[in-house]
Amino acid sequence: MKVLVLNPNTSSEMTASIDRVARQYARPGTEITSWNPDRGPLSIEGAFDRQIAIEASLEKVLKAKERFDSCIIACFGDPGLQAFREAFDTNVLGIAESAMLTACILGHKFSVLSVLARSRPSAESLIRNYGLQDRCASVRATGLSVLEVHSNQERLITRLTEEGKKAIKEDGAEVLLLGCAGMAGVDKIIQSALNVPVLDGVVCAVKLAESLYDYGLKTSKVGFFKTPEKKNYPGLWPGVRLPWGQ
Amino acid sequence: MKVLVLNPNTSSEMTASIDRVARQYARPGTEITSWNPDRGPLSIEGAFDRQIAIEASLEKVLKAKERFDSCIIACFGDPGLQAFREAFDTNVLGIAESAMLTACILGHKFSVLSVLARSRPSAESLIRNYGLQDRCASVRATGLSVLEVHSNQERLITRLTEEGKKAIKEDGAEVLLLGCAGMAGVDKIIQSALNVPVLDGVVCAVKLAESLYDYGLKTSKVGFFKTPEKKNYPGLWPGVRLPWGQ
Amino acid sequence: MKVLVLNPNTSSEMTASIDRVARQYARPGTEITSWNPDRGPLSIEGAFDRQIAIEASLEKVLKAKERFDSCIIACFGDPGLQAFREAFDTNVLGIAESAMLTACILGHKFSVLSVLARSRPSAESLIRNYGLQDRCASVRATGLSVLEVHSNQERLITRLTEEGKKAIKEDGAEVLLLGCAGMAGVDKIIQSALNVPVLDGVVCAVKLAESLYDYGLKTSKVGFFKTPEKKNYPGLWPGVRLPWGQ
Amino acid sequence: MKVLVLNPNTSSEMTASIDRVARQYARPGTEITSWNPDRGPLSIEGAFDRQIAIEASLEKVLKAKERFDSCIIACFGDPGLQAFREAFDTNVLGIAESAMLTACILGHKFSVLSVLARSRPSAESLIRNYGLQDRCASVRATGLSVLEVHSNQERLITRLTEEGKKAIKEDGAEVLLLGCAGMAGVDKIIQSALNVPVLDGVVCAVKLAESLYDYGLKTSKVGFFKTPEKKNYPGLWPGVRLPWGQ
Amino acid sequence: MKVLVLNPNTSSEMTASIDRVARQYARPGTEITSWNPDRGPLSIEGAFDRQIAIEASLEKVLKAKERFDSCIIACFGDPGLQAFREAFDTNVLGIAESAMLTACILGHKFSVLSVLARSRPSAESLIRNYGLQDRCASVRATGLSVLEVHSNQERLITRLTEEGKKAIKEDGAEVLLLGCAGMAGVDKIIQSALNVPVLDGVVCAVKLAESLYDYGLKTSKVGFFKTPEKKNYPGLWPGVRLPWGQ
Amino acid sequence: MKVLVLNPNTSSEMTASIDRVARQYARPGTEITSWNPDRGPLSIEGAFDRQIAIEASLEKVLKAKERFDSCIIACFGDPGLQAFREAFDTNVLGIAESAMLTACILGHKFSVLSVLARSRPSAESLIRNYGLQDRCASVRATGLSVLEVHSNQERLITRLTEEGKKAIKEDGAEVLLLGCAGMAGVDKIIQSALNVPVLDGVVCAVKLAESLYDYGLKTSKVGFFKTPEKKNYPGLWPGVRLPWGQ
Repeated sequence: MKVLVLNPNTSSEMTASIDRVARQYARPGTEITSWNPDRGPLSIEGAFDRQIAIEASLEKVLKAKERFDSCIIACFGDPGLQAFREAFDTNVLGIAESAMLTACILGHKFSVLSVLARSRPSAESLIRNYGLQDRCASVRATGLSVLEVHSNQERLITRLTEEGKKAIKEDGAEVLLLGCAGMAGVDKIIQSALNVPVLDGVVCAVKLAESLYDYGLKTSKVGFFKTPEKKNYPGLWPGVRLPWGQ
Repeated sequence: MKVLVLNPNTSSEMTASIDRVARQYARPGTEITSWNPDRGPLSIEGAFDRQIAIEASLEKVLKAKERFDSCIIACFGDPGLQAFREAFDTNVLGIAESAMLTACILGHKFSVLSVLARSRPSAESLIRNYGLQDRCASVRATGLSVLEVHSNQERLITRLTEEGKKAIKEDGAEVLLLGCAGMAGVDKIIQSALNVPVLDGVVCAVKLAESLYDYGLKTSKVGFFKTPEKKNYPGLWPGVRLPWGQ
Repeated sequence: MKVLVLNPNTSSEMTASIDRVARQYARPGTEITSWNPDRGPLSIEGAFDRQIAIEASLEKVLKAKERFDSCIIACFGDPGLQAFREAFDTNVLGIAESAMLTACILGHKFSVLSVLARSRPSAESLIRNYGLQDRCASVRATGLSVLEVHSNQERLITRLTEEGKKAIKEDGAEVLLLGCAGMAGVDKIIQSALNVPVLDGVVCAVKLAESLYDYGLKTSKVGFFKTPEKKNYPGLWPGVRLPWGQ
Repeated sequence: MKVLVLNPNTSSEMTASIDRVARQYARPGTEITSWNPDRGPLSIEGAFDRQIAIEASLEKVLKAKERFDSCIIACFGDPGLQAFREAFDTNVLGIAESAMLTACILGHKFSVLSVLARSRPSAESLIRNYGLQDRCASVRATGLSVLEVHSNQERLITRLTEEGKKAIKEDGAEVLLLGCAGMAGVDKIIQSALNVPVLDGVVCAVKLAESLYDYGLKTSKVGFFKTPEKKNYPGLWPGVRLPWGQ
Repeated sequence: MKVLVLNPNTSSEMTASIDRVARQYARPGTEITSWNPDRGPLSIEGAFDRQIAIEASLEKVLKAKERFDSCIIACFGDPGLQAFREAFDTNVLGIAESAMLTACILGHKFSVLSVLARSRPSAESLIRNYGLQDRCASVRATGLSVLEVHSNQERLITRLTEEGKKAIKEDGAEVLLLGCAGMAGVDKIIQSALNVPVLDGVVCAVKLAESLYDYGLKTSKVGFFKTPEKKNYPGLWPGVRLPWGQ
Repeated sequence: MKVLVLNPNTSSEMTASIDRVARQYARPGTEITSWNPDRGPLSIEGAFDRQIAIEASLEKVLKAKERFDSCIIACFGDPGLQAFREAFDTNVLGIAESAMLTACILGHKFSVLSVLARSRPSAESLIRNYGLQDRCASVRATGLSVLEVHSNQERLITRLTEEGKKAIKEDGAEVLLLGCAGMAGVDKIIQSALNVPVLDGVVCAVKLAESLYDYGLKTSKVGFFKTPEKKNYPGLWPGVRLPWGQ
């Protein structure tokens, strides 16, 4: 099967490190392609960043000739998940949703270890959106920006270990989630240190994409994720044809 | 005070009718300006439409020289509300949020009278996002598209009256909300017919904008709506300077 | 428009200070009248106090010849709100409800800064009643009685600042609410000190009353706030005629 | 032990029929006294009625010389329960709360069979107040007023049976609650007809009062039900001394 | 009436101490019989223990010739409550459920004082199962095992007092629940020390069993607790006849 | 990897049909073994059946010499899931939990199509236990017993199609779940008929087991699923050694 891993920010280094993780855990028959949009924020740390990134990401994928069996949005806020699911018949997975659902099999409550403090209310909102508030022990911020997360792995490991410990002791977490795609590669280090499952949503999404493919399942199109209505979009991306007609 | 009413779709007829309603209920000292973005969907009926509309809307307002005391997003899904509140110091109001909060003063439970059936799960999600699920009796669809809503007022009134009646009788609604900015101008007709308050979110937003202005209140910038981090956005709108620096 | 501000306790000094705040933010065309009942508790700090105050307040307003467009119950517990809304066609606003709904426009979560510790469970109950539990970060007590609040403004400002800071840092509050009508006049001082919106419910209620009036909206009478049934009340207030008949 | 059954309306016929039911199920050692206040509504069907009834009821009991081990408020809305629990060291039970808690032992979900349609939102609010919303299948109205309920037992039985059947079939109710103290005496008739437990809250409250007495338990006074603060109540009931001092 | 108190573990000392407490508070006409199963764990501290204990307990009671009016499951996790209620026409009470429902009459929020830390998530799950999450202030672990609880009363009292104090001060508890049947006999000591009601679920269950008996109420058999379907159980307990047929 | 599929009832025909489905969707490297316990109910339709089945199932697996990488409990009520997760280091999956989590990726809301009406409250309870109540549109009963489900596939397909259609139209379901392991083999037939994803939990569990294995994840042992305490179980299964010691 062919899986597109879409990093919605424009950092090609981050795309490369996400790609490495996705390939590491993909099954032999799973072909990973990793892209990022051609314009937009270098990192995604709030709603403004997300909105800019989504539009550029939609164009990138709709313009492309390649077809995939699954598309993974590799940013922990799952930006544009509903829009992508409407726009494609392909399965679309968000790494936050994938990590949270996987966590629910492994323990009673999970905690998210996030980047800047500003991402806490957004992450809590996302969890409520997914109806998983009763399974979440806490969202804890490491205080690192996305770019720091990506560039200083030692500091990242220290801060994740510190906050992970508190999540387990003080909040009752039984599973920990890496709250940023830029944290790629440290999951097993923290897992060994703290002795609870630690999940990288990119891996969770790759495994769930394979599962859905094996079982022949696709996004339900009768409600929340119905294909967009046919309509006019004056001025929209020159050269892009919307698959559902215009 | 100066209020920008932003219709995030590209239908200038709809912008004009929203503008009329906003001016009708604005106080003498409130100056209304109504805009729509230069590109994007002619109507907004799903998440894909919303995402395209938000990006174009953000550009439109960030590019402009005019400064406003308040900005109203005049589409019932409140698209981009979090991003706008991050990006501007100006108060930003969504017409769905404004209508729901106003409804909470007038009755125990409100119902939303929406457009196509597809908007039901999205509207329910929005209501949960605002934490108002316990105040919502139901979301009912008229089955009309945004463009039908706007072009056939007689049919609109018939369907709103039918579904409104059911919302009151079967769901326990005490207040009704017009679930689309394109329904402008029929609120008082339905209110007279059904004898419960009927709210157009555009009017509610104008009145709340005036209230916040009078009391000297602005969006809190310490959490969910913090100003975006300073960062690079390669390829973003040429000629636009982000107010918080780049 | 004519607005009655009803302080349900019998402290005329508190009525006067509430009146000052209401007038300060009322629009030129809004005429403020402030009353308190002729008997009942000097301050309201629990359910017993509230029950005594409501009965006396209902008599006061039902006995009066003056007619108002709106009535504001100026005590943070919103005592008697449902009964007042049943009994009058006039809009009735509670200052707690008004402050909470206004806060929802300005930030993701609000905290209430209250008086004695005993008011915490009552305030939490009220918030649940309004279905706003998901928007409330915390209720924090200053430990001051209503009368101390009113008589020692310096101490009040110190305690509000201390607890407000903790609400922001520890509880995630983005907006603060003054949890007692006796705290009139300190909102902007705390707002400057803590750099988040600080709301006095009396002002919020005045502004919402003006908004409802402008938009021609009145309490829904089909459900929770239906006019009382016509019936016999042996021994009820001599000289008072119930508007809905007896 | 001595139990006061307080019917908060002024109908002495209803007081007598409630008294009969209470005595029928009281243990030999339990002495029942039944009172109603000297003024106030002949029946309680809304918030206005409740507020008037509470004040008169508080005076009635505070003025009395007799002391009781338990006080039961015999109106399904549990009017004034928090105020009574603050004001007395004696246990205070509401018949709605008592019926709901008893129902939780007998089945997964209960339904309330109420009087007029207007009592539905109030009853739902009460259930939420008690945090029992997840145990409630529905609140169904018989459409009968309190006085009809009391005067036409045949019609009452017909309507309770009809709505009870629907509650079981359509709403998943496993236990039924008589939603008005005036329904005294029909519980076992409906129970035989529908083959599910049917609870009269007056009986439930008597049994719970005996249980608390036997086990030596009294209302917790450290939080929600703390004794009122000592303060001045100008003009309050002449001749009444508040037990906590003035 | 005849009440069976079933201690589902195999410690006969614990059965004896539970029996003492049940007899101490039973009414003169209530005849207490206390049993434990013939095989299974000496103490119950997790789901594995519970499952083993339930099967052995079901056999014990189904095999017996004696008939009871009520059966009490005397382990704070209420193991097997649904299965017992299905299998018997007799009322069945769990001591956790009984304590929680009784607590709801005495205060706004209760805390459970439990044994090992591992029982916290299980107890929280149980409370959610009963729909009582909004009434629970906290579950606090003493860190003692069931056997330590039973063998070292002095240490038990010290730890319960310490955690109970914190539950009141930090969590807002107004009522405390002994979270293990092995804590029998210390309720009134802690109650005197902390001045809030302290409940032993065994006593609460005895009193509720008497109440249901007096009022002629039995488990509803139309839904959650329907009698098992008649079917084949190859290899099930030799010599036991299932009352509903096989 | 080696996966044990455990059918907790004693019907070897049902075990065989579940085994067929599991093998059909397992990856080449996944070795499926399917067992049922040696004693207990022929079908599981209530809590009594579940309790008997769990004990026999635990013995069966603990007695076995074979070791597995994953164990799947193949009964829609997920009987004994917590106990199994405590008792084994191996991952343990329930088919209800697996189906529900998979459904969350495919649509906004799922419905469960169940057997007898009596299973509705149990299924709703299970969903709440998993904290997924906000994602569940409804639980609908086909009215068929487990044995009818298994023996009359034509009738099963008719009833699933009828109730599935109503779930989509009336309840807003976007994904359907087969609510009984005995429904094996009809998922794709219903999916083609109704055009929404239809999930057999056995397949979902196999795919999730493979995913966890690939990613090197195991049940968290720090909280809800902690290994049982070492203790005495007088009379427990002769010849079985508990892996954690006795």
